Amino acid sequence: MDNSTNKKKEVKKLEKITPRSQNKSKWYRDVLRMADLADYSPVRGCMVIKPYGYRIWELMKEDLDKRIKDLGVENAYFPLFIPFSFLQRESEHVDGFAPETAVVTHGGGKELEEKLVVRPTSETIIYSMFSKWVESYKDLPLKINQWVNVVRWEKRTVPFIRTSEFLWQEGHCLFDNKDDAKQNVIDALKIYYEFLKEKASLYVVAGKKTESEKFAGAEETYSVESLMKDGKALQVATSHLLNHSFVKAFDVEYTDENNELKTPWASSWGISTRTIGGVILAHGDDKGLVLPPGLAPHQIILIPIGNRDSETSQDIGETFGDYVSENVEKVLSEYRVIVDWSDNSPGWKFAQSEVKGIPIRLELGNREIENEEISYYIRYSGEKGRIKISDLHDWVDRKLKEISVEMYESHKKFTLDNTKKVESYDEFKKVVKDGGYVEVFFDQGNDGKSENEIQVDTKAISRCMPFESVDSAKLKGGVGKCFYSDSDKGVTTLFARSY
Amino acid sequence: MDNSTNKKKEVKKLEKITPRSQNKSKWYRDVLRMADLADYSPVRGCMVIKPYGYRIWELMKEDLDKRIKDLGVENAYFPLFIPFSFLQRESEHVDGFAPETAVVTHGGGKELEEKLVVRPTSETIIYSMFSKWVESYKDLPLKINQWVNVVRWEKRTVPFIRTSEFLWQEGHCLFDNKDDAKQNVIDALKIYYEFLKEKASLYVVAGKKTESEKFAGAEETYSVESLMKDGKALQVATSHLLNHSFVKAFDVEYTDENNELKTPWASSWGISTRTIGGVILAHGDDKGLVLPPGLAPHQIILIPIGNRDSETSQDIGETFGDYVSENVEKVLSEYRVIVDWSDNSPGWKFAQSEVKGIPIRLELGNREIENEEISYYIRYSGEKGRIKISDLHDWVDRKLKEISVEMYESHKKFTLDNTKKVESYDEFKKVVKDGGYVEVFFDQGNDGKSENEIQVDTKAISRCMPFESVDSAKLKGGVGKCFYSDSDKGVTTLFARSY
Repeated sequence: MDNSTNKKKEVKKLEKITPRSQNKSKWYRDVLRMADLADYSPVRGCMVIKPYGYRIWELMKEDLDKRIKDLGVENAYFPLFIPFSFLQRESEHVDGFAPETAVVTHGGGKELEEKLVVRPTSETIIYSMFSKWVESYKDLPLKINQWVNVVRWEKRTVPFIRTSEFLWQEGHCLFDNKDDAKQNVIDALKIYYEFLKEKASLYVVAGKKTESEKFAGAEETYSVESLMKDGKALQVATSHLLNHSFVKAFDVEYTDENNELKTPWASSWGISTRTIGGVILAHGDDKGLVLPPGLAPHQIILIPIGNRDSETSQDIGETFGDYVSENVEKVLSEYRVIVDWSDNSPGWKFAQSEVKGIPIRLELGNREIENEEISYYIRYSGEKGRIKISDLHDWVDRKLKEISVEMYESHKKFTLDNTKKVESYDEFKKVVKDGGYVEVFFDQGNDGKSENEIQVDTKAISRCMPFESVDSAKLKGGVGKCFYSDSDKGVTTLFARSY
Repeated sequence: MDNSTNKKKEVKKLEKITPRSQNKSKWYRDVLRMADLADYSPVRGCMVIKPYGYRIWELMKEDLDKRIKDLGVENAYFPLFIPFSFLQRESEHVDGFAPETAVVTHGGGKELEEKLVVRPTSETIIYSMFSKWVESYKDLPLKINQWVNVVRWEKRTVPFIRTSEFLWQEGHCLFDNKDDAKQNVIDALKIYYEFLKEKASLYVVAGKKTESEKFAGAEETYSVESLMKDGKALQVATSHLLNHSFVKAFDVEYTDENNELKTPWASSWGISTRTIGGVILAHGDDKGLVLPPGLAPHQIILIPIGNRDSETSQDIGETFGDYVSENVEKVLSEYRVIVDWSDNSPGWKFAQSEVKGIPIRLELGNREIENEEISYYIRYSGEKGRIKISDLHDWVDRKLKEISVEMYESHKKFTLDNTKKVESYDEFKKVVKDGGYVEVFFDQGNDGKSENEIQVDTKAISRCMPFESVDSAKLKGGVGKCFYSDSDKGVTTLFARSY
């Protein structure tokens, strides 16, 4: 047996992914590692995003950046460091963020006169600039976004889901009236909603946060929430009506058309690398990742299959190379296609393409070529079949769209199937353990005390008061008897255990 | 006089830019402010990149990212924070960077056990990961890039040119042989060279750095250097053959085909937001910014001009709106076009389009429409004229290319005109004050002592030992008598005062 045959026959060990039912945290870590998405770094709580994971982020960014620009928002860049005194200017904000900041005390070999905080979010530094930039009503609206890294010192971290450093975009806009600010808050939420549906095939619930769950410094916070397969909810993106908190703390004022001094209205909104965690947890299965076509680095993988076991990848390349480039790569040039010409065995390649969650796998051997066909396998459904090579382009075009919609519908069904309506706290305690959303009438009161009690008692917290639809931005459902208190002013609210 | 006429006639004050000859630093700051590129932040040495400046960066990134990916390099993301001990593992590296780091001592309200450095560059953290990722020759080459913010605590800062925080890309690659690593170092330099020529219209000299000017931890450093209009040189991008320094410090090893343990060869390379400073300093003039078409956020501005002074922008919009959208915007949809419908006077608009460096200005009034013509003004040359509206698309297409090439040629001529060859140190001292490159035969010795003496004496330092061409990567010129020492082993070297 010569060396090349030897190489061909070398069987790379295929690690087994721990079944989710057995250990969901080990399952997640196995998928991360085997799909080559991310790695643990030597710095506590910070992750390394590997090329395959980063490509998903690039696809997210490309799509979202376009949607954000279509709202008339322009990208800019503000400093990483924020003077500690800035954080202190808004009392809720400093209470919310100071405990989780990373603090720079030394620069250029010397102790700094004023400590710097590594941005956990950029309202304070941005408003300090807005106060220089906004003078008259003509300077409004001012719509800015930045794509940056932020740091929040988290106690328990999970790659993508909750990390001490993560990547996100943060939009910060100013308006001369509250209606426009509120509309912008909803427009941003709608961008996330539509992106998540169309590109991530994630069903999300849009709604308003309760007082205790809103952003530190906001008047109102809205979010899109998504249910993961393990029954826990994930907050995927948020959008805030900031009202006058930061604006006043940083003396942002403008003169209106009558030359009167006015206070502008503000919004901020963001989505982060956490979304990638959501995609893993909502779509993944025991074979690994299942990627929606909209965010798959490779939408299609082609695996050429030799005739005999002894054929090397070079032999296969010589046999199939021209055929593949003419009939597959050229035909599918508008999609993200990869051809696996590596030396590994077909079995290894199949398993690997499943771990990596590639939506469509195509297989091509001599039999297929003779019949002018190609074999296919659909990752999310397991569907298999053959198609005429002459139909390939149209079939791929249709199939990718179908997969995207079907994955969304399946996630929507899962979410609705796992949403339980309850009326009493006893019922609540019984069902909340099983995972999924629990829908109740809830009167949050005005001190957050009952939410806190419920959380301590059941580990569940409110996710949001859901909208009828993100377009209407009206709270769904009516008012009823609170499941927890004696109040009959409860509002439809979703609770869940969450990430 | 009613309010709307009043608004129309309102003359926004046009600030004067300080002439460069009068005060070049004030000129630079005036251009930054009036062209709306950047602003000073409350954090020492950190800048805010405003949307107009950031758009230039986005255009740079889009173009360079494509070139980098074409080299087979994949994007990833590594943590912002680096354990201080990592910096210490490579002795030259810690000496080079420790004095200019920002240090995080507290996280989550507690003092950290190990201080963290905010990345000044990422070799150390990346190599610590490479040591986990590389096992066999099959894992090589490994080609990674990241687009990130980095921090170097600078004493004197100038927006874009030298700031405590800046944005860049850093490529980090590993190879199983030195030739491939060296080729990658040159390929990266070539990407920068070609990008700067084609998109930034900057003429640069590519070459090798002397020992005292190379990167802390590299065996060889290469750079592209560009001459600014004030006669100072700017290092625009660098590329390093890292050799075994970091690889050994972080125990990166692989087994070759014979199962022997080997040490891989490494490269790293980067280009930053400093390039935007280079574009301002190399092309700008006393009227403001002059942008090359390749990096101009708006390549073309159209200014519609009313008939009478009393016409409001709304009147003008009603008269010209459809004509402009049909005959200009639609026709020029593949270019970056802006139409200025604002209420400001035509004079203000003209001046503003000049400050912002927009390559082509088009003007359209009733006279033009009657004659089916459009008036134009070319920012960099001052050329004016009229063209038939039916020729607009082809003319713009040709003209943008011409402007790009002519700006490059003009910068090349300026650079060559300002490169003086001298043979003695006396001559050197006389001409170096005037600015520009001074070309000499120089024997750097092996301790950097003479370079240091020359710098203290004349404020000039070596820029590079230039290549014949970036493709050949061979040092230009021969060997001759050193202008500074008695050695006759001097190599052609460019000196200049620099940023």
